Amino acid sequence: MRKVFQAELHQIGEELIEISQLVSEAIQKANSAFQGADTELAQEVIAADARIDFLQNSLDERAIDILALQGPVASDLRMIVGALRMSASLERMGDLARHVAQLARLRFPANVIPESIRATFDELAELDVDIAAKVTELLETRNLDLSNEINAANARVNELHASVFKAVAAEDWNQNAPTTVDVTLASRYYERFADHGVSVARKVTYLVTGEWQPSAPLN
Amino acid sequence: MRKVFQAELHQIGEELIEISQLVSEAIQKANSAFQGADTELAQEVIAADARIDFLQNSLDERAIDILALQGPVASDLRMIVGALRMSASLERMGDLARHVAQLARLRFPANVIPESIRATFDELAELDVDIAAKVTELLETRNLDLSNEINAANARVNELHASVFKAVAAEDWNQNAPTTVDVTLASRYYERFADHGVSVARKVTYLVTGEWQPSAPLN
Repeated sequence: MRKVFQAELHQIGEELIEISQLVSEAIQKANSAFQGADTELAQEVIAADARIDFLQNSLDERAIDILALQGPVASDLRMIVGALRMSASLERMGDLARHVAQLARLRFPANVIPESIRATFDELAELDVDIAAKVTELLETRNLDLSNEINAANARVNELHASVFKAVAAEDWNQNAPTTVDVTLASRYYERFADHGVSVARKVTYLVTGEWQPSAPLN
Repeated sequence: MRKVFQAELHQIGEELIEISQLVSEAIQKANSAFQGADTELAQEVIAADARIDFLQNSLDERAIDILALQGPVASDLRMIVGALRMSASLERMGDLARHVAQLARLRFPANVIPESIRATFDELAELDVDIAAKVTELLETRNLDLSNEINAANARVNELHASVFKAVAAEDWNQNAPTTVDVTLASRYYERFADHGVSVARKVTYLVTGEWQPSAPLN
């Protein structure tokens, strides 16, 4: 019985990693679509998000079955409840990658981001890809150094997000309103994506150390 | 033992209602702050959000203790897992009310929303208040008619959210970029708030009927 249970817990862990890998892929493709105004790639991300949602549901159902059938306690219980929460964050990261792709598709063949702040968005995109990759690696290895790196990347995302609003408020911002809307939303999507990455990292850290780190409230 | 357990489940339900009431109050005050550029009221909402976060954490801890100590199965288990998810949605609604209040405070003494689309935002604000009140009532009564009403209100929120982007893209939109940013973010906050209300309503419906209704993906 115990052996079956351990196999089931392991399976949950594997599924989280699989979802995290799909999220990683989604944000990479969403960025390429977004930067290169590639509508086919955008379409791929949008379609792939349904798979992430499906996997999240099936992971959640399995986790609830384990709770019902095995009545786990202590660290096993925390791990399963943690998995339910992490799957919700990962699913949301998938949604946000889809939103980035949808912006690209909506404005096709134009680029969403004006030249003057493209470097900022390139960095945001890169940071989110980095965060997604590190979340996957953290789930695989439980190496908590990665959690610190994710926090650092998120801090930089927040700086860039603030700098976007500064750029938009500056006198030399001469973009039309729809572009301003797109820039605002895209920046918000990148910022939220990173926040959810931090949220997963905090849960892994908690599972490993048993200590909850209340952080500044997420946006 | 069974009696203690039922009392604990009841307590979880009561706490969800309490959080939902605080969220209701938060969105009402956030709207008043937002519409009247009232910075003190905005400050109240921002401060009160910490209380919502605290209650969510304590509800979650209690729910996990029940899982560990009682090993509930079947509908009791679903109720507790559902409570964990609903508390996450309610906490997020509190965050979004805080964001609305923060926009009001940031722009004080100016109003965030230009006259030309103030009616749209008044309706968005009213719908979110209505959704929050109905979520509380649904948690109290489990009357599923309320769930349908919440869905209908959310559909209207989505329409208004889309109409905001249409207004911003129209030729006669003559607001500056920071105002365009504020309008975009405010509309997005109202729309997300409503989505989370729908999410809570779906979970209550599921707990009552045992049937999950996969809906269109939330944004």
